[in-house]
Amino acid sequence: MSGLRVLKGHGTENDFVLIPDLDGGLELTDDLVRALCDRHTGVGADGVLRVVRSEQTAEARHCAATAPYFMDYRNADGSIAEMCGNGVRVFARYLQWSGLLGEATAVLIATRGGPRQVELTPDGLITVEMGVPRLLDQRPLVTVPGLSGAVAGFALEIPNPHVVVEVADRSTLDGLRLDSPPVVEPALPTGQNVEFITRIAPDRLAMRVHERGVGETRSCGTGICAAAVSAAMTGGGSGAGGQWWVDVPGGTCRVSWTADGGVLLSGPAVLVAEIELEPGWLVAAGG
Amino acid sequence: MSGLRVLKGHGTENDFVLIPDLDGGLELTDDLVRALCDRHTGVGADGVLRVVRSEQTAEARHCAATAPYFMDYRNADGSIAEMCGNGVRVFARYLQWSGLLGEATAVLIATRGGPRQVELTPDGLITVEMGVPRLLDQRPLVTVPGLSGAVAGFALEIPNPHVVVEVADRSTLDGLRLDSPPVVEPALPTGQNVEFITRIAPDRLAMRVHERGVGETRSCGTGICAAAVSAAMTGGGSGAGGQWWVDVPGGTCRVSWTADGGVLLSGPAVLVAEIELEPGWLVAAGG
Repeated sequence: MSGLRVLKGHGTENDFVLIPDLDGGLELTDDLVRALCDRHTGVGADGVLRVVRSEQTAEARHCAATAPYFMDYRNADGSIAEMCGNGVRVFARYLQWSGLLGEATAVLIATRGGPRQVELTPDGLITVEMGVPRLLDQRPLVTVPGLSGAVAGFALEIPNPHVVVEVADRSTLDGLRLDSPPVVEPALPTGQNVEFITRIAPDRLAMRVHERGVGETRSCGTGICAAAVSAAMTGGGSGAGGQWWVDVPGGTCRVSWTADGGVLLSGPAVLVAEIELEPGWLVAAGG
Repeated sequence: MSGLRVLKGHGTENDFVLIPDLDGGLELTDDLVRALCDRHTGVGADGVLRVVRSEQTAEARHCAATAPYFMDYRNADGSIAEMCGNGVRVFARYLQWSGLLGEATAVLIATRGGPRQVELTPDGLITVEMGVPRLLDQRPLVTVPGLSGAVAGFALEIPNPHVVVEVADRSTLDGLRLDSPPVVEPALPTGQNVEFITRIAPDRLAMRVHERGVGETRSCGTGICAAAVSAAMTGGGSGAGGQWWVDVPGGTCRVSWTADGGVLLSGPAVLVAEIELEPGWLVAAGG
């Protein structure tokens, strides 16, 4: 292989290497994903988004008629993931930037978690259908340094598992130590992301998140949705019929609801650069 | 400004954004340096290396006749730095890659720390003259989690201050906790980088380093030199007349000596990618 052309982009500082591979000809190995995502020896990113025509891949050929592009999303460690709320916005921004969308401002994007409706609006935000949350009965107790005593959390799946904990104010939120996983008792069967939120206005939350297997991150798309659902369900504010703005360390997103109880996540998506990997680097990376 | 073309490279995983600016026309603001080096919203790097013809900049015009290119090195926080042992190799690799060196395999590179002789050898390594170390009389006591009791360190300047501590074996080295600064008593007047080393062969060291104001890093050029000087001075091995290989987390370098007591650092330098920043990103970054 000679050089490989990719892009870098981010959504609320969740960052991705985008690989345009419309005809599906690239063999995207785990080694290449890890090499690209390495922050010192590669491009550096939280994950890879390969852009391929749905008709060119067995994973999405069945929905190619309605969802023309498939988002092949990989975590930085090379593992396969179903969906990523921040990633799909960056994916859509690329489709727009590259001209693949033409004049369209909405598109159905095929993902391993099913097709997702995405809309690009004049305010610069991109809105993604995140599905219908499933509320769980559990109210597990969460303990974390910086918070006195165990606090009952709100548990839900969208579709990955979350526990949301509300704290008293912004300074309590800022003082939490999330460098190790919060203790959740009982933990959900497959583990959970834990979101800590506080209300800073009737329609606005501040949030920090600890992602299972990762640590504290700058943003988590499903976590932002979980936070808004929890806030709406546990009293006050805009409620399920309105919308919430959620401030995370990496920026701000908006959560709103569809008529059927589904959740919509709106947020920014930025393309940073076009990148051509050096052929020598690629050979060393196993590309 | 429309797009900005840069490159990314690394030397033993110390990584840099290279900005070719031969005619010196770019106003490289602190804001732009920080935006470029941000690992989630920019390109991501430990620092920036601007490549400018010495005759085009007041900082190097006086030595343009012998050192044709000036390395304008900035730390990731935008601050100005004199020299960087890993960065100057990446800088030289760029000069070679771009054709600016022609057939030459040696070049004098102007830096704020003075001109540095650099040689590119067929083994793929790049050798940089690092100057003559100044040994200090102090033997400060160093305490760090993972090491029982305080251990006397070897202090020297090349020209930034270092304290080198030898530990018993590889497992002791690997078990040190460097997530907070080692305690050095008495500390050197301007602080110090602290290198922990162990001998793994007569001419080979393993090393970890805590850089002042930064934390543990994957590699530190002057620290590698300090480690070899300390090992040579404190008994056994190749000594000042020979050479040492030093394994750091980011790779391996070689340290040797010149006839006048100067230190030469040899190591790899990799160009990863050519990068064109998006115009919209640049505007937001203040570029």
